[in-house]
Amino acid sequence: MELKTKVHAEDGKQELTIEREFDLPVSLVFKAHTEPDLIEQWMGNKVLKFEAKNHGGWIYEIKNPDGIVVFRANGVLHDFVENERFTRTFEMENTGFAVQLEFFEFQKVSESKSKLKMHIIYKSVEQRDQVLKMPFIQGINMAHTKMEQLLKDKD
Amino acid sequence: MELKTKVHAEDGKQELTIEREFDLPVSLVFKAHTEPDLIEQWMGNKVLKFEAKNHGGWIYEIKNPDGIVVFRANGVLHDFVENERFTRTFEMENTGFAVQLEFFEFQKVSESKSKLKMHIIYKSVEQRDQVLKMPFIQGINMAHTKMEQLLKDKD
Repeated sequence: MELKTKVHAEDGKQELTIEREFDLPVSLVFKAHTEPDLIEQWMGNKVLKFEAKNHGGWIYEIKNPDGIVVFRANGVLHDFVENERFTRTFEMENTGFAVQLEFFEFQKVSESKSKLKMHIIYKSVEQRDQVLKMPFIQGINMAHTKMEQLLKDKD
Repeated sequence: MELKTKVHAEDGKQELTIEREFDLPVSLVFKAHTEPDLIEQWMGNKVLKFEAKNHGGWIYEIKNPDGIVVFRANGVLHDFVENERFTRTFEMENTGFAVQLEFFEFQKVSESKSKLKMHIIYKSVEQRDQVLKMPFIQGINMAHTKMEQLLKDKD
């Protein structure tokens, strides 16, 4: 089955792009990426910090039922324009992955439809290819579908 | 004449690397990149902010004699390890250039010699190529030479 979230990764490049259309107004999709309580609901991690502004920092964490941290990532925001775009750094802790840079663009398609474009750049082609070997695309597609359902239910 | 600062930029890539050996101990080269009064002396800009820590922000500015801002850049730090490395974002304001990500590595060669490696990744190949058309390499080589002289004089 074709996934709704499209990932485009050219051979030999150290970048990839991700696109998804949502049956949601652009303002809601932006909120889902910048309001801690919403982020937690569709991404499944705790938001320890999210400062929605230029140079604002963010920290996400997941603990297993024994209270052990199994995922922790952090970064900062640049070029933060409400309902339009932001750029963020993404550092997955204790994994050996370098910091990556992510450009998010939120586009209005109609009053009730919008498009999210993500553009991620990696320290090397090898690091990007390593990410693509993980169930990354399936994961983000599932999370996006969950987000759409969650916000439709709230609407 | 061959420049002491070497820039390596492969065709069709969205990255470049910069290397320079200094007749300076690694701790001094690190200081020159992280202490505002030193940064101002060899880079020629004012340092409005420099928080030497993870998620710390920095702002550089140059005004012309009439007090008009002619250069302003800002960013944040990741992976800050004293005398070893940091990663920073670099956003040149009001130029149309996207945020870029820069990895700095400081290596000890001997007690009195060290090597700086910079690895810069850009949003696109086009943005990197645009940078290379500017007198970027000459500029950074000159600044490095000035830094080396400055710190030798202080030694």
